[in-house]
Amino acid sequence: MSYDVFFASSNRNKFAEAKSITSKFGLKLKFLNSNLQEIQANTLEEIARHKAIQAFSICSGPVIVEDAGLFITALNGFPGPYSSFVFDTIGNKGILKLVSTQRGAIFRSIIAYCTGHDNVHLFSADVNGKISKKEQGKKWGFDPIFIPSGKYETYSQLENKNQISHRYLALKKFANWYMNKKRSSGL
Amino acid sequence: MSYDVFFASSNRNKFAEAKSITSKFGLKLKFLNSNLQEIQANTLEEIARHKAIQAFSICSGPVIVEDAGLFITALNGFPGPYSSFVFDTIGNKGILKLVSTQRGAIFRSIIAYCTGHDNVHLFSADVNGKISKKEQGKKWGFDPIFIPSGKYETYSQLENKNQISHRYLALKKFANWYMNKKRSSGL
Repeated sequence: MSYDVFFASSNRNKFAEAKSITSKFGLKLKFLNSNLQEIQANTLEEIARHKAIQAFSICSGPVIVEDAGLFITALNGFPGPYSSFVFDTIGNKGILKLVSTQRGAIFRSIIAYCTGHDNVHLFSADVNGKISKKEQGKKWGFDPIFIPSGKYETYSQLENKNQISHRYLALKKFANWYMNKKRSSGL
Repeated sequence: MSYDVFFASSNRNKFAEAKSITSKFGLKLKFLNSNLQEIQANTLEEIARHKAIQAFSICSGPVIVEDAGLFITALNGFPGPYSSFVFDTIGNKGILKLVSTQRGAIFRSIIAYCTGHDNVHLFSADVNGKISKKEQGKKWGFDPIFIPSGKYETYSQLENKNQISHRYLALKKFANWYMNKKRSSGL
């Protein structure tokens, strides 16, 4: 087969990033262009699980979806599972207004891998960090305002973001697990 | 029958308010204590419809749910369909930080009435107004920061809130529609 697993998303840039990451681990992704319904759940895990099952019902093959959220500690985890909506409405400028002295935040990525309606595996990774005082670097989601721990630049400014990010870590977990399984099953 | 329609909610105070409003129009509500799943949809209408169908599957009888959202115009409709989550995380203090000179907002209520899995009627009402500069009056949701058009006090401060609110207007629409239907069907 020319690919291992579908990657379902409506965002081709997100797919390109994921493909480039997983290829380093030998895992080949194929784009499944799809607009999946998000349930209004309290956790990214539930949202990702629900989307993965929907995606499976479209492609009838092994598929992953990725869902990410920014959790600001002093704001009780806001915007968390509603990160996309919050980004689309108040944006980074709104987030900067809300954050005062306590700037700690977690960027979380969940990969949900589905091979059947009741068969979903979740892979999760967190990156601790803080919200910057202003937007810095090229615009992509919350990247211009998130500084990972131990760094002095935002995701947007870091050249090696794709080797340290929450998405990288979650995809790496999944790819290693998948390739191990593939090897041991002799596929 | 000692009641006309179930009112599904996990919030007994919301039921008490609704019951007191609809009784003026002759409509009797019965509390259905239930924690309904919210889908992550872009409109209150979709969320309310989904919850009403869930509620029907619990009580197997005519049932309404009410869903409300605050839409701040200059913030692209934030917090809108995610009003509960936003209230629970950043609260009114967060909203006040986000709003600057353009303070216009709409408080919207949707009543979804369900009598079968594919049979949902929606009743909607908007109240135009603005976000106050500080919290005023007793705490209940966004009431301390919403001033309806033509008034100088917040919902929390107004003695007659329940005769002018978005929830009142939507419940009145539903109650009138229901009682007309009941009369014309001779129930």
